[in-house]
Amino acid sequence: MSDAVETIAEIGELALLERLRPFCADVVGDDGALLKVAPDHQLVVTTDMLTDGVHFSDRTTPPHSVGWRATAANLSDLAAMGAAPLGITIGLGLPPQTPWPWVQHLYQGIADCLTQYGGAIIGGDLCRANQRTISITALGQVQPQQAIFRHTAFPGMTVVMTGRHGLSRAGLAVLLESADSGSSPDGSKQTKWIEAHQYPVPRFDAIAQIQSIHPHPTISGMDSSDGLANALLQISQRSGVGIEIAQSYLSIPTELVAFVGAKKALKWTLYGGEDFELVLCLSPKIANCFLAVCKSAIAIGITTDSGTVQLRSPDGCTQVIKHQSFQHFS
Amino acid sequence: MSDAVETIAEIGELALLERLRPFCADVVGDDGALLKVAPDHQLVVTTDMLTDGVHFSDRTTPPHSVGWRATAANLSDLAAMGAAPLGITIGLGLPPQTPWPWVQHLYQGIADCLTQYGGAIIGGDLCRANQRTISITALGQVQPQQAIFRHTAFPGMTVVMTGRHGLSRAGLAVLLESADSGSSPDGSKQTKWIEAHQYPVPRFDAIAQIQSIHPHPTISGMDSSDGLANALLQISQRSGVGIEIAQSYLSIPTELVAFVGAKKALKWTLYGGEDFELVLCLSPKIANCFLAVCKSAIAIGITTDSGTVQLRSPDGCTQVIKHQSFQHFS
Repeated sequence: MSDAVETIAEIGELALLERLRPFCADVVGDDGALLKVAPDHQLVVTTDMLTDGVHFSDRTTPPHSVGWRATAANLSDLAAMGAAPLGITIGLGLPPQTPWPWVQHLYQGIADCLTQYGGAIIGGDLCRANQRTISITALGQVQPQQAIFRHTAFPGMTVVMTGRHGLSRAGLAVLLESADSGSSPDGSKQTKWIEAHQYPVPRFDAIAQIQSIHPHPTISGMDSSDGLANALLQISQRSGVGIEIAQSYLSIPTELVAFVGAKKALKWTLYGGEDFELVLCLSPKIANCFLAVCKSAIAIGITTDSGTVQLRSPDGCTQVIKHQSFQHFS
Repeated sequence: MSDAVETIAEIGELALLERLRPFCADVVGDDGALLKVAPDHQLVVTTDMLTDGVHFSDRTTPPHSVGWRATAANLSDLAAMGAAPLGITIGLGLPPQTPWPWVQHLYQGIADCLTQYGGAIIGGDLCRANQRTISITALGQVQPQQAIFRHTAFPGMTVVMTGRHGLSRAGLAVLLESADSGSSPDGSKQTKWIEAHQYPVPRFDAIAQIQSIHPHPTISGMDSSDGLANALLQISQRSGVGIEIAQSYLSIPTELVAFVGAKKALKWTLYGGEDFELVLCLSPKIANCFLAVCKSAIAIGITTDSGTVQLRSPDGCTQVIKHQSFQHFS
């Protein structure tokens, strides 16, 4: 049995904590971790919980990617608020038969994402659970005048997304081999979509570029974790503005249309979710400067005083976009 | 079917979030919550995860108590660090068939505990899970010179516990009707033990009393969430000191001895856990002042240079106390 994979039940809780300690910052060890927030900064807090079979599965997400995605999802929320990461805590629920390498690679994925984008593991809790469950709380800091909210858009702003949408959903489809029809994308495209699903990028770079254009820009926005349409609707509803976007600006990849057809490609672009781009409303002047420096960014429309989110199709018709988000409990 | 209990699947995620919003602070609504840490204060962060069947069950813990306990456990960590509560985030995993009243009473328990001891619900995440799972991260603030750590004890300090131990374990036994033998405690005692289990109190009052004696006291300590013995061992190991406590000082209730016998009463006192008292090492002078004002506090021993934790029994023998903590994955 020497080559059998060790389970966490065999290791035991105290030894497991010891094995995870090297991944953590030195502050771990007391009832709580002490952390310094810079003077004149405010704290930003965000929590995401992920469960096996809902947010990830062995079929689509190796443990390193589970760790990366869970971390990137939280860091993306910080980026969307204009904040810089300070650290994260991890609540981890695990069945006793979980193999140690799964936990090790999970933590390595978390650590790799933090190394790349900032922050450290500053606390957490392990407990027995029927289902692998990860609850991450991320802490960041922001100067109050640089904080980004959903409720501060007004008519006449340019609506920009920091990158294309629907690619994470396409990657999931490739991983599940569940595309309904159409031609399979070539290998490099498949790899890119799978990467979009397994290794999303929190867009701190975009915020830094905007702040280098103007330290206190006129801005409103959020991330597109629950889909592009959801982000547009949230900003519209919270700000009390309309948004009009043009389908031709959405840059839906031709390979995606070839893969699943135009209708589903549009659906995945609007409602696919988990692309973790930022959807930002900017003054036209700042938007132009931003689009000149951020290669992946695309202007998709404008804010209006209509109160609804409208999509203009290539033939000039408009349709009202509504919520169609993932319902966890249905 | 009009009198059937509504499940969260019937309500749906968006409507459920709306029902929970009144429990939350106004800061909820963006990708993250913005929070101000007072000048010259540091942030304290702590996370606890609880799962149904491990940390609570319908048999022993009504949902209001689950919410209170989960919150109190986190606030107790803040108290143990000398910090004041700022707010909490809640990661909540729920099976779709969970009745709405269970969720409602859970949040009411959380809110009631926060109302009593400070802080607000400043964020969270809901997701589908096989098992009811609650992951709370609590944030607090402390002036660095008032922070309490485990590693700062030295020989010659007085070891104080802020209250008796073993009562939460006794309450659990009464709830499970699993006491092995002995006479049942009377009704008022039963009620008190059950209350100790279901409604533990984070001991902010004790820290305030010590700070009113001396603003920057010589102090080391932690809370006894994992048992009195575990707290003594953690302080001993992290500080590199010995601790000698006397069994006769532990104030084991005679009713508890009558209920389960002297041996098990001692075991529950040392290893029962979840009493959420504070175990503090203080200079003898401050300890004396503290004992004079904090009625529930009891001096149980002294720190030594022996390196081990020793228990002196009434007949004068000493035994070394070792870890015997709850192992989640065994």
